Amino acid sequence: MTDALPIGMFDSGVGGLTVLREVMRQLPGESTVYFGDTARVPYGSKSRDVITRFSLEIGQFLLQEKVKMIVVACNTASAFALPTMRQKFKVPIVGVVAPGARAALAATQSRRIGVIGTEGTIESQAYSEAIHYLDPKAEVFGQACPLIVPLVEEGWLEKPLALEVVKEYLTPLLTNRIDSLVLGCTHYPLLKNLLGQVTGPGVKLIDSAEETARAVGQKLREDKLEAPSGSSGAMRYFYVSDAPEKFEKIGRRFLGQELPAVKRVDIGSWI
Amino acid sequence: MTDALPIGMFDSGVGGLTVLREVMRQLPGESTVYFGDTARVPYGSKSRDVITRFSLEIGQFLLQEKVKMIVVACNTASAFALPTMRQKFKVPIVGVVAPGARAALAATQSRRIGVIGTEGTIESQAYSEAIHYLDPKAEVFGQACPLIVPLVEEGWLEKPLALEVVKEYLTPLLTNRIDSLVLGCTHYPLLKNLLGQVTGPGVKLIDSAEETARAVGQKLREDKLEAPSGSSGAMRYFYVSDAPEKFEKIGRRFLGQELPAVKRVDIGSWI
Repeated sequence: MTDALPIGMFDSGVGGLTVLREVMRQLPGESTVYFGDTARVPYGSKSRDVITRFSLEIGQFLLQEKVKMIVVACNTASAFALPTMRQKFKVPIVGVVAPGARAALAATQSRRIGVIGTEGTIESQAYSEAIHYLDPKAEVFGQACPLIVPLVEEGWLEKPLALEVVKEYLTPLLTNRIDSLVLGCTHYPLLKNLLGQVTGPGVKLIDSAEETARAVGQKLREDKLEAPSGSSGAMRYFYVSDAPEKFEKIGRRFLGQELPAVKRVDIGSWI
Repeated sequence: MTDALPIGMFDSGVGGLTVLREVMRQLPGESTVYFGDTARVPYGSKSRDVITRFSLEIGQFLLQEKVKMIVVACNTASAFALPTMRQKFKVPIVGVVAPGARAALAATQSRRIGVIGTEGTIESQAYSEAIHYLDPKAEVFGQACPLIVPLVEEGWLEKPLALEVVKEYLTPLLTNRIDSLVLGCTHYPLLKNLLGQVTGPGVKLIDSAEETARAVGQKLREDKLEAPSGSSGAMRYFYVSDAPEKFEKIGRRFLGQELPAVKRVDIGSWI
């Protein structure tokens, strides 16, 4: 059996486009509906309750758009809202945390793993739990990096102070002698070079986008939801809750190509 | 005539507490209801439409709490939402932009005025318009500083990179030979020392909190809404849309004293 319906994906903003990019690369025949919650971005500093409520509202919107699966392309929402979303919605739900945890364990030799992310992601211990579920002996060291997202959004990656910010966060983390570092926020892949400069070549950087796209492909095969192989071109839909032009402009860097028209939808009206 | 009802105030988060602090100092007999929209913070990067909608929702909430006046203790919301709020609500509405503009004009000698604020505040040209309304010959130079709010919230004011961030924003602005600088965001007063280091003593820093509290007092007198002078102690109420404990913790620095219990209210339910 196959299913031509699109895959739904969401993030608090543009970050999840790094996951979409990988899904488009690995599964080019799958249509996608992406939602960026730009009216309420960022998620990283907010509570489990509020992020769960936002995620349920967005899930509802995506289901109205007739998606066959929901990809939570946001680390904070994955850390907080997955169990509730799986209870409420019947379609399969794939997050970014479990794939990131798997990738980290595949990469590490010393089993000393660092995780950087938003305050919410780090405080939730979601990566720590996901890694320990697979390997109880691994040691996980987390570090919240709240300034990195605004730095990326400001486009200041080349400035000397970007390096200062990254050093400020990573220096204490590196004293734990980690050999792999999970980029636990979809904004961080854009800083990969800078992060690598600070960690040095002895630390592998784990970008969960690739592994998440792989998990999406596997789940589609398992549930027999793959797009028909002979189907004509995949469709791309983009929605945001605020400022579509700005999303198009910043989104390019994350998606690695131009975005088609982005529509604003009023999130208050779905409930 | 007098009115013992409280004054309503709101901001996207903790920043507006700098205005509340001044209101408490200048008008100690007035009770207050403060709302921080911590579920949707920040406002500075969002559109006029969305910020206007949020402001109307919060206004509605404050009116349910029976406030006699609404103080928009947020520069972005003042820049975007005041006209619509004044149309929809019958109570007097006081923003922070007009008082800041007046204070800048009182301070400047060269009539070359700098304004720093969020993207929304600067792009709206609200300060520029307010200043030109009072003095068409003044020259106004704006600079959006999106990284300053997260820097203040991270508590990194003493780190060398805070100085780097401030220099990055102010150096181009200072080439315009301004002699006064409006701190057009309620977070900025906490950075006053650092800003002064970069501007040097020749530039006066304008904090609109003080001037706004004065405008509130004046409006209360004009509309005969002052609290009865013999009334027993003023009441302080604090509400947020997310994470009350965090608000209490960060809020202290802005209010300059401990906060009483902060309650969370569910903003979705007012509409």
